[in-house]
Amino acid sequence: MQNHTVGGWLDELASEASTPGGGAAAAMNAAVGAALISMVCNLTIGRPKYAEYEKELTEALAEAEELRGDAVRLAADDAAAFGAVIAAYQLAKTTEDERLARTAAIQQALVGAADVPLRTAELAAALIALARRILPGSNVNVVSDVAVAASSARAALDAAVVNVEINLAALADEAHRTAVRARLDAAVTAGAEADAVVAEVREKIAK
Amino acid sequence: MQNHTVGGWLDELASEASTPGGGAAAAMNAAVGAALISMVCNLTIGRPKYAEYEKELTEALAEAEELRGDAVRLAADDAAAFGAVIAAYQLAKTTEDERLARTAAIQQALVGAADVPLRTAELAAALIALARRILPGSNVNVVSDVAVAASSARAALDAAVVNVEINLAALADEAHRTAVRARLDAAVTAGAEADAVVAEVREKIAK
Repeated sequence: MQNHTVGGWLDELASEASTPGGGAAAAMNAAVGAALISMVCNLTIGRPKYAEYEKELTEALAEAEELRGDAVRLAADDAAAFGAVIAAYQLAKTTEDERLARTAAIQQALVGAADVPLRTAELAAALIALARRILPGSNVNVVSDVAVAASSARAALDAAVVNVEINLAALADEAHRTAVRARLDAAVTAGAEADAVVAEVREKIAK
Repeated sequence: MQNHTVGGWLDELASEASTPGGGAAAAMNAAVGAALISMVCNLTIGRPKYAEYEKELTEALAEAEELRGDAVRLAADDAAAFGAVIAAYQLAKTTEDERLARTAAIQQALVGAADVPLRTAELAAALIALARRILPGSNVNVVSDVAVAASSARAALDAAVVNVEINLAALADEAHRTAVRARLDAAVTAGAEADAVVAEVREKIAK
């Protein structure tokens, strides 16, 4: 998505085209959250008042930039995974052999289609943890942006959960479903952490 | 923001530049939510299976498109309002008259700076109401995207709340603060509505 204009990308998202869709939207929410964490780090690093947090925020900046790159790539991965599902459904189903091959291909594509939002959920959880980590040492002038970052990452997480579940619903392999569900449940705990970051920021602002 | 590339806009968001910042990020989250509502409407309208919802979704599509345009404009308004605050702080403060004029200019600029996120919060609340309205008649194949839209609008709402509060904290006019707070409190109730939309979608998927 990164080479589209923002307006053009939003137009495509709004259109009937099958991609970009909700998976890319979740990835965009995550990218926005990552960019804001970078902004807060950039506006804090080098300020004498925050010298004691310099090392922590420099590390956080590198991590946020990496997560932002990953998020942008996830939007492309989502389109590819969706394309594989569509291609599998379009396979021939005249003979019994074709039907078996088609069913196997669909199931394989669905595994890939569930994997992208699962990685989005885990990335969002990592962003929320990062927002929490930088909060004590963030420049107070932009502390509200830490909350905005956490909210945006939370939206990515919530969206990714629904996107995983809609793909799992059609997945036959119960062992794989269980494994995905366990990883998803682990990521989901970050939702409460995001709310805690927002609440802490609002307290700081009210003081 | 609409004429920037997505990658370029994210780079600017991540940078030390004062705009775009959290206000533009909230506006982007709202625009993503609006675009997804449009997508769901576009993928439902004209399908015989959903004929009874045709009128409702056609109206919802027009509304979502209007809200998306408003959201994109809010990102620009946010940058302008922030610029006005910076300009006011940079006014001369040598004489007593200058100091009084500067204080008045800062307060006036802060009113504008609180107004943009307040309108973002109200726009996000309208989007969440729209997501709820289209849910019963949405194409089941893209019902997960209604949840993604609601999550994204909720992030815009939560972010806008923090952005209003950080501006209100510096605002001297108590009557204006009270009026803004009342409008903000009214918008905030949509947060629970967004969670209800996500929960309802997850139930539909699990069936």
